[in-house]
This record gives sequence, C-alpha cells and structure tokens, in this order.
Amino acid sequence: MTEAEVEAKKAQESLQDRLGQVVELLHRHKLVEGLTQRQEGHHQDRVEQLVHRQHLVELQAKLDELHPADVAHLLEALPLEDRLMVWQLVKAERDGDILLEVSDAVRETLIADMDDQELLAAAREMDADALADLAAELPRDMVHELMEGLDAQQRERLRSALSYEEDQVGALMDFAMVTIREDVSLEVVLRYLRRLKELPGHTDKLFVVDYDGVLKGVLPIKRLLVSDPDKTVAQIMAIDPVLFHPDEDAYEAAQAFERYNLVSAPVVDKNGKLIGRLTIDEIVDLIREESESEVLNMAGLREEEDIFASVWKSVRNRWFWLAVNLMTAFVASRVIGLFDDTISELVALAALMPIVAGIGGNSGNQTITMIVRAMALDQLTTGKGNTLRLLRKELSVALINGLVWGGVIGVVAAVLYDSLGLGLVMVSAMTLNLLLAALMGVLIPMTLARLGRDPAMGASVMITAVTDSGGFFIFLGLASLCLM
Amino acid sequence: MTEAEVEAKKAQESLQDRLGQVVELLHRHKLVEGLTQRQEGHHQDRVEQLVHRQHLVELQAKLDELHPADVAHLLEALPLEDRLMVWQLVKAERDGDILLEVSDAVRETLIADMDDQELLAAAREMDADALADLAAELPRDMVHELMEGLDAQQRERLRSALSYEEDQVGALMDFAMVTIREDVSLEVVLRYLRRLKELPGHTDKLFVVDYDGVLKGVLPIKRLLVSDPDKTVAQIMAIDPVLFHPDEDAYEAAQAFERYNLVSAPVVDKNGKLIGRLTIDEIVDLIREESESEVLNMAGLREEEDIFASVWKSVRNRWFWLAVNLMTAFVASRVIGLFDDTISELVALAALMPIVAGIGGNSGNQTITMIVRAMALDQLTTGKGNTLRLLRKELSVALINGLVWGGVIGVVAAVLYDSLGLGLVMVSAMTLNLLLAALMGVLIPMTLARLGRDPAMGASVMITAVTDSGGFFIFLGLASLCLM
Repeated sequence: MTEAEVEAKKAQESLQDRLGQVVELLHRHKLVEGLTQRQEGHHQDRVEQLVHRQHLVELQAKLDELHPADVAHLLEALPLEDRLMVWQLVKAERDGDILLEVSDAVRETLIADMDDQELLAAAREMDADALADLAAELPRDMVHELMEGLDAQQRERLRSALSYEEDQVGALMDFAMVTIREDVSLEVVLRYLRRLKELPGHTDKLFVVDYDGVLKGVLPIKRLLVSDPDKTVAQIMAIDPVLFHPDEDAYEAAQAFERYNLVSAPVVDKNGKLIGRLTIDEIVDLIREESESEVLNMAGLREEEDIFASVWKSVRNRWFWLAVNLMTAFVASRVIGLFDDTISELVALAALMPIVAGIGGNSGNQTITMIVRAMALDQLTTGKGNTLRLLRKELSVALINGLVWGGVIGVVAAVLYDSLGLGLVMVSAMTLNLLLAALMGVLIPMTLARLGRDPAMGASVMITAVTDSGGFFIFLGLASLCLM
Repeated sequence: MTEAEVEAKKAQESLQDRLGQVVELLHRHKLVEGLTQRQEGHHQDRVEQLVHRQHLVELQAKLDELHPADVAHLLEALPLEDRLMVWQLVKAERDGDILLEVSDAVRETLIADMDDQELLAAAREMDADALADLAAELPRDMVHELMEGLDAQQRERLRSALSYEEDQVGALMDFAMVTIREDVSLEVVLRYLRRLKELPGHTDKLFVVDYDGVLKGVLPIKRLLVSDPDKTVAQIMAIDPVLFHPDEDAYEAAQAFERYNLVSAPVVDKNGKLIGRLTIDEIVDLIREESESEVLNMAGLREEEDIFASVWKSVRNRWFWLAVNLMTAFVASRVIGLFDDTISELVALAALMPIVAGIGGNSGNQTITMIVRAMALDQLTTGKGNTLRLLRKELSVALINGLVWGGVIGVVAAVLYDSLGLGLVMVSAMTLNLLLAALMGVLIPMTLARLGRDPAMGASVMITAVTDSGGFFIFLGLASLCLM
C-alpha cells in the first residue's frame, strides 16, 4: 500500500469507528427499534448494513425519524467530535427543537459550532418562551435582531419572560393558552375547539377570562367531556383553581404541582389578568435540575458538566470547591501543628487522629443533609421549639454513636498500642466530636435559614471543616492533657 | 393555686403551644388562606380566634377543608405528639387518602397509632393500586382479609401489582383507564364519555383496544376535540404510542416520560393486551424519590428519615455507613502506622498529611459523581473507547489541579517549615494522589457497571477510602524516601 492508501484506510476506519459508536448508542437506547420493539429484527439488519456501508445519508435518514428529544439525548452521549458530526447531519429546520432539548453544557458546544446565519434561522422558528430559554446563550445583537422580527405581542412576551430570574415562575411559563368566555355553552366551546387546527400540548384545562383578560376560572377538559353540552361554562367551571404569580418561587410552584397532581395551571398578574401558564413538563425538568444541582453541590461541582467537556472547562468547573477545601484542610493542618510536641512524644496519635475527624465528618453530614432536606421540603420551621427538639434528638443519637463506635475503636486502639489511657482518650474524643458534629449539624442550617441564606449551599463543606479541625483539636488536646 | 390547678394550667398551656404550632404551619404553607390568597384577611382572624379559644372542633373543621395532600404535608411537618393529635382529628373516611400521600416514614407512625378496625375501614375505600402501595406496611392477615373483600377483577389486579418489585413499571401502574373500540365514530366516543360520571385523573388519551383487550392505539383527547366527529377512531388514533411492559425498569419509564413529555401511557403484557397505565403524577413522585435516595446515599443515610423520628430509629438508619466509614478510617490509620518512625523524626508530616488525603477525596468525589450521573442518565456507555477517553481527560484535569494547588500548598509548606524538600514532597504527593483519585474515579464506576452492579451505591465511600489510604501512603512514603 502507498502512504496515501494507508492514510485513506485509516480515515475510513476512524469514520467506521465513530459511526459504529453512534449506532451502538442508537441500539442501546432502543431509539432505532422504537420503544415498542415491534420491528426490532427488521430494523436491526438495516442498521448493521448502514455501518458497513458507512452511509452518512442513511444515518441522516435515521436521525430524521427520531424525536428531537432522542436526537438531543444522542448528542449528549457523544464525544465532541462525533457530536458535531451528527449535529451537521440534522436537518436545519429541526435545529431549534433540538437545541431546546439538550442540556446547557451541550447546547453551548452546539451553538459554538453554528454560524450566525444558522442560529438566526433556528431561532426564528421559536415561540417567545422558547426564545427566552435560549437568549442567555445567544450573542446580544442577535437577540435584538430576533426581537425586531417578532410581532408586538410576541416581543412583549419575550421581554417579560427575560425580565424574571431563572427560579421564578415567570421564566418558566409559556403562552400557549386556550381561553374562553364564561357565558357561552359547552356546545359552543366544543365547536370553537374543533375550529382550532390543534390544541397546545398539556392542555388539560381551558382558561375562562372576561373581556379584560382577567381569569374567572378554569374549565377542566375532563368536566367538559362528561357534562351536558347545553350547560354554560359558568355553570361547570372551577372558580378557585390553583394559580401562580410570575414573581413566585418556581420551586414552590413545583411543590404545588406535585401536591395537587396538576398538569397545567394559570399564571396571573397582580390584577388577576391571565398572562401565561405553567405545565408539568417544565416542572419535571425543574425538579430534575433541582436535585441535580443538589447532588453536584454536595460533590463540589459548580454546575452540570458535559461529560465530554474539554479539560480546561472541567478545571474551571471544579476549582472553586477544591480551593475552599484546600483552605479548610490548611486550617485543620495548623490545628495539628499546635500539638507538634505531643505527637512527637506519642506518634500513635498521628495514626489515630484521622479516625476521630473522619467519623465526625460522616456523622455531621448525616445530620445536616437530613435537616437541609426537611427545610427544602418546607417540613421544618426555624422556630425555637423545633431547634431545641432537634438538638435534643441529634445530641442523643450522637451520644449513643459516640459511645458505641468510640468504644469499639477505643478497645482496638488500647489493645493495639497496649495503652488503656489511649483507648479512653479515643472514646472520649470520638464522643465529643460526634456531639460537636450534631450541634453544628443542627445550628448551621438553622442559622443560615434564619439569616435568610440558602442552607444547602456549602453546608457540607462547613460541617466537614468544623469536624476536622474540631476533631483534631479535641483528640490531641485530650491526649496532651491526659497522656503527657 | 392548688397543685391540681397548676397541673391543669400547664396542660392547657401545652395544648395552646401545640395548637399554636399547628396554626403557624397552616399559615406558613398558606393552607388556611388557600393558594389564591383572596380571603386572607377574613380567614386569618378566624384562625387567631381559634388559637385563643383552643377549639379543637374548629381546627377539625379547618382540617376538613384541606386537600388530603395538604393534611399529609402538615402531618409530616409536626413532631410525633402533635402529629398524632391532628391525625385523631381527621375524619375517618379521609384516612385512606391521607395515608397514601404521606412519606413512608411518617405513614409508619400513623399506622402504628390506628387500631385494626380503623385500618380496615380506611383500606376498604381504596382501589387495587392504592392498596398495593400500602400493603407492605399492613399486617399480613389484614391484607388477606382485604383481598377477600374485593371483587374478582380487583383482587386479580391487587395480586398482580403486589407481584412486581418496587422499581418496576408494574408496581407503579394504576387501572383507571377509559377504553374504546376503533370502529366507532368520534361522535359515539363523545356520547360515551358523557355517560360516564367522571373521567379518571390525568386522562389525556383514551386507549383503543380490540375485543380481546389488545391495544390497537391511543386516541389523544387533544385530537378528539379538534377532529370532525364523523370520523372513526381508527382514522385519527395514534397507532404507535410509547408504551411500557410491567416488568420494565420504572426509572427508564420515567426517562421516557420526561423525554416525550407524556401525561399518561399504556402498560401492556407480552401479548400486547392492555393491563394498566402509568401517569405523570406517579412518575414525578418516582423522580423525587430517586433524587432523594441519591442525596441520602451520598450522605450515608440508608433511607428517608422522618425528621421527628425517635432517637433509636435514627441510630438504626445511620449506623451502617458509620460502621463502613469506621473500617475505612481504620485501614487509613494502619497505613499511617507503617510510617511511625518517619513521623517521629519529622513531626510536620503529621500536620500536612490530612491536606493531601482531603484534597484527593474532594477531587475524586467530583470525578465519580459526574460519571455516576452520566451513567444514570444513560449518557455513558462502558465501552473501552469511552473509558480511555474519560481517563485521558480526568488524568489531565488531575495533573493541572495537582500542579497548581499542590504548588500553592507546597510553597506554603516550604516557607512554614523552612524546608524546600518538604515543599517538593508536598507537590509531588498532591499530584500523585489527585492522579490516583482520577484513575479510581473513572475505573470504580465503570467496573461496577460492567459487572452489572449499581455504580451509585457506595461509590463515594470507596473513592474516599482509596484517596485517604493512598494519600497517606504516597505522602509518607515519598517523605521517608526523600527526606530521611
């Protein structure tokens, strides 16, 4: 083979590898066969052929058959190079739908790959509420250009959606509402609906408004279908629906959706005027994001990370908590430094001290996690009665755990180092550090909440800092008092 | 005052306190005023009176006005004593609905407070799918008694629902389906619906079945409403809906609900026969539970804990991870023990070693959390290509972080202890431990997944164990090689 032939073969193999991976993913997620799995055999053959022929055109045809959410998921699961290859194959008119489905981190990589022309074309197809979701990641003058292309109502909606914080109801609402008047008969409503080409997704209720657009009630589709068509809307509508205001906290709205099993709900302004609606699909996304950010925060990641992100991006996403950790570890190290003399006299202390600190951290994290969760679910008020009650309980748990586990490790230490005194110091230090962990595990989130701060953010780092430094201090301090 | 009077006064004050707390909660959660807040002023006065009069009867009336989910939430937010007081005030016929809404931990406390008669009465009001949710916590012979009280179809349904694992679709489905035939016109469907008194919650589609009960398609209500009533069901139904099998993984069903924005979906058996349906409200609960158990596992709690649980219950919920932690800490302690001589020669090592171990743990947890999440969302296959790619990336991130943060702390250590050698050992040990953390952060979840295990469970504990023992070994090992 000539060198050129070798090169060509390599390029072909690499393409085959990449296509193979795409197809493996399609298989794995049952996207090719469809969720019904009915035509599995039939499709599978086609896909294998596709790999062998390396027919990009066929892959493109496959992609066209997929739901935008499936394409989005496929893109998220592909390394950058392959992701952009697939992205190029997607038909331009589907770009917008798919951009709305992918995660923020992946969306960034896709947008970076599009030129202004493509981006504008994709954005032009979107509703005001979809545009609002995307606007943060578009160039500023493109947003202006897009705004000018909208009609007055859409522009107003986009502007209002952009004026709310990410965690407010206003940023989550959409504008796809079907409104009716209260004085018409259900028969008329049914005829009106039939004249519409289609109903917006998640339409489980129609919104009843007066001539000024003020919400008078809602007409659940369920009731519309089972009621006598001669009745009027006013007779069967629900007049006291669960409703939201645009500046309300989105997480509280999510709790209401969960609690009352809602599918959609109206959003009204201060004067009771209907301005939008919330739907369960946005709420589900919100719940998922909320729990993700909780997990990520606990692990010390600032935000969701594209698993195939560049090294540099990962470093940026992770440096903050590493730096915080470094500082707290340094403080703990200085605490140990105070007891240099004690340690050099009894070097066993150096080996035992991480146990005291570690168990304290673990136990403190148990307490603080439970309390932060209860607060997030609004199950815990910060009243004095509750604080005292929780303190009593957590201190009792800590006392039992300290005596039991401290006792176990104390006996081991006493036997191992042949020193009863060391064993006793170990038990006492463990118990005291667990008590400290319980105390701070209750007081830190309660205090943060009373100061109006978010108790979740950094609570775990704070408790670990306390139990590390505290654990070293208690253990080494007791040792120098009792054993020296 | 006589002693009896003092006692009476105390009892009264305690009751007042407790009622006050209940009312505070009612206020806080806007339950009293209703979410619309329209009649706030009016209601508020009433509630204050209620506290002063300590009128249990009025509190009872208030409770009767609340949605069962709100009562459930109130019960969850009350300490045991108050919780049982409120529980006694709830009308017996609402017991069942409320039991279904509370968390498992709180449900246990409520059931423990009911006698068999009350429990039976509450359970008799329930559907088969609701009973199935509750059955695990009822006495076994009561379940038998309840089964005998059901008609044949309900009994069969209950038996089948009980035969599935908690995380299977079969355990989540309900049986409230509206089925129609494909050969009738939409006009007939509309008339049929009107004859039903009401439609089940979350009915966004009707299920089209043949005479054997085999699913032929679904008729979305949206389409029913906008289509010509003279058309037949077969003409406008969707023939390839997203559907599930009862033995499928419920979490995968949840992902499909999220991805395709579903409100309800049919569940069919192997022969395509319709046996139940899934609805978004159950899916939302599942997503919430999934994310909760993830957070709780990370913090070392075995399951959701009633915040007002008894000390003994809390101890049981927490002992397992504490014991695991104790063992890994003990291993790390033995590693340090290997270097007794080195430490007694250079006691600064004892103060610096926790920094190396701590940063390694933090960094390893960042890596492993990201990978476990990507796996849970099916974004990451365990193929060799992906493992290598991730290893390359994570090792690069670790190298950068090690050199940067290791460099910072190395300089500090060199200055503090006036020893260039110590600084260099610090930098090298930090870098090596971060590389170890990255390596294990990728390999542990990938290996667990390839062995068919759940990578989430205990991953964080394993990585911390590795970075602790590894960090101590690397740092003290390097120190004894280079500085002694």
